[in-house]
Amino acid sequence: MAQLNERPLFVTFEGIDGCGKSTQAFLTHQFLVSRGYKVKLLREPGSTSVAERIREVVLNKRLKMSDLTELFLYEAARAEITSREIAPALDKGTIVLCDRFYDSTTAYQGYGRKLDIRMVKALHKIAVKGVTPDLTFVFDVDLKTAFARLGKSKDRLESQPKAFFKRVRLGFLEIARKERRRVKLIDGTRPVDEVFDNVRKYLLRKLDR
Amino acid sequence: MAQLNERPLFVTFEGIDGCGKSTQAFLTHQFLVSRGYKVKLLREPGSTSVAERIREVVLNKRLKMSDLTELFLYEAARAEITSREIAPALDKGTIVLCDRFYDSTTAYQGYGRKLDIRMVKALHKIAVKGVTPDLTFVFDVDLKTAFARLGKSKDRLESQPKAFFKRVRLGFLEIARKERRRVKLIDGTRPVDEVFDNVRKYLLRKLDR
Repeated sequence: MAQLNERPLFVTFEGIDGCGKSTQAFLTHQFLVSRGYKVKLLREPGSTSVAERIREVVLNKRLKMSDLTELFLYEAARAEITSREIAPALDKGTIVLCDRFYDSTTAYQGYGRKLDIRMVKALHKIAVKGVTPDLTFVFDVDLKTAFARLGKSKDRLESQPKAFFKRVRLGFLEIARKERRRVKLIDGTRPVDEVFDNVRKYLLRKLDR
Repeated sequence: MAQLNERPLFVTFEGIDGCGKSTQAFLTHQFLVSRGYKVKLLREPGSTSVAERIREVVLNKRLKMSDLTELFLYEAARAEITSREIAPALDKGTIVLCDRFYDSTTAYQGYGRKLDIRMVKALHKIAVKGVTPDLTFVFDVDLKTAFARLGKSKDRLESQPKAFFKRVRLGFLEIARKERRRVKLIDGTRPVDEVFDNVRKYLLRKLDR
């Protein structure tokens, strides 16, 4: 069915922890597979042996690290997943779905940690070598909903204070506002099916083009 | 004895694996301590719990990673050691000796892996936030001598082919040529004591100023 994927698509799922992006990425994968597409579902940071090790370090709650170290670790994982997984899959005509990508780093390390946004974006550019998402979903939820969904077993990033997540959320909204063509802002507080209706609508529009 | 360290000094020890830099860093540490200086000896990558974990990943022979990932991991470790160890020590008037620093990344990832040198240096600049060595020793040895010293238990970087080390060595020579004021090129094939006489000479010149 290679003909179905003449224009391989790179789709990313973004938002604060607890926004429902992983569920939506999973549903999207199921939907596309059922339609006969070749699809690959990845997560960031992670999805290769080196990147999963980086993930272990960066999300380890017992480790403290500088904001810059955190940023470089995310870019290291990103360079890995991009060159080893995303680019080769797209080259083969596979649709790639990624649970988080560089917008998360812009939102968390840029807006959340208050690192210089331009510097953060310059690192993305180095890490991905031109492999950029064609379509990005940002699932917006209020912090109360997000925290209730997260429960108690949080990793190092999820354990940050509320003010941090407020900045991250506003960061995502800013990203969506600045790049309307690529980034679709979706109300993540709605029921799962309703959220997915929105995702499917944008997705089909992109695929039919 | 704080008055001895009015001008804290940041000294780095560089060169290909097997060049003798760790031995010289150790001797320098001993010498300065015996003279009553407050001195801190660090190694790169490593020296903090996060950076040692990064070291485990980047030097792990069983792991394959893209050159960019390798570069970002070194910068992550560097951001960590610089903000948590080097800068605070210098602020307290301690002399800092570091076994490898950013010149190693320029030589290994820039010249060795053939990544863009300007991009590599731009990342150093982000990682160190203005904390740059006052004095750097590059110990030059031919590859035959270096490989004989290394023996058989090599890590991921040490296991690279000879052509790679040839480029790295030339990289270090180029760095020394371009920054003569900071970087002192020393013949590392000479006996340890003789090499250290050279190190001490430059060091005292710097300290007496």
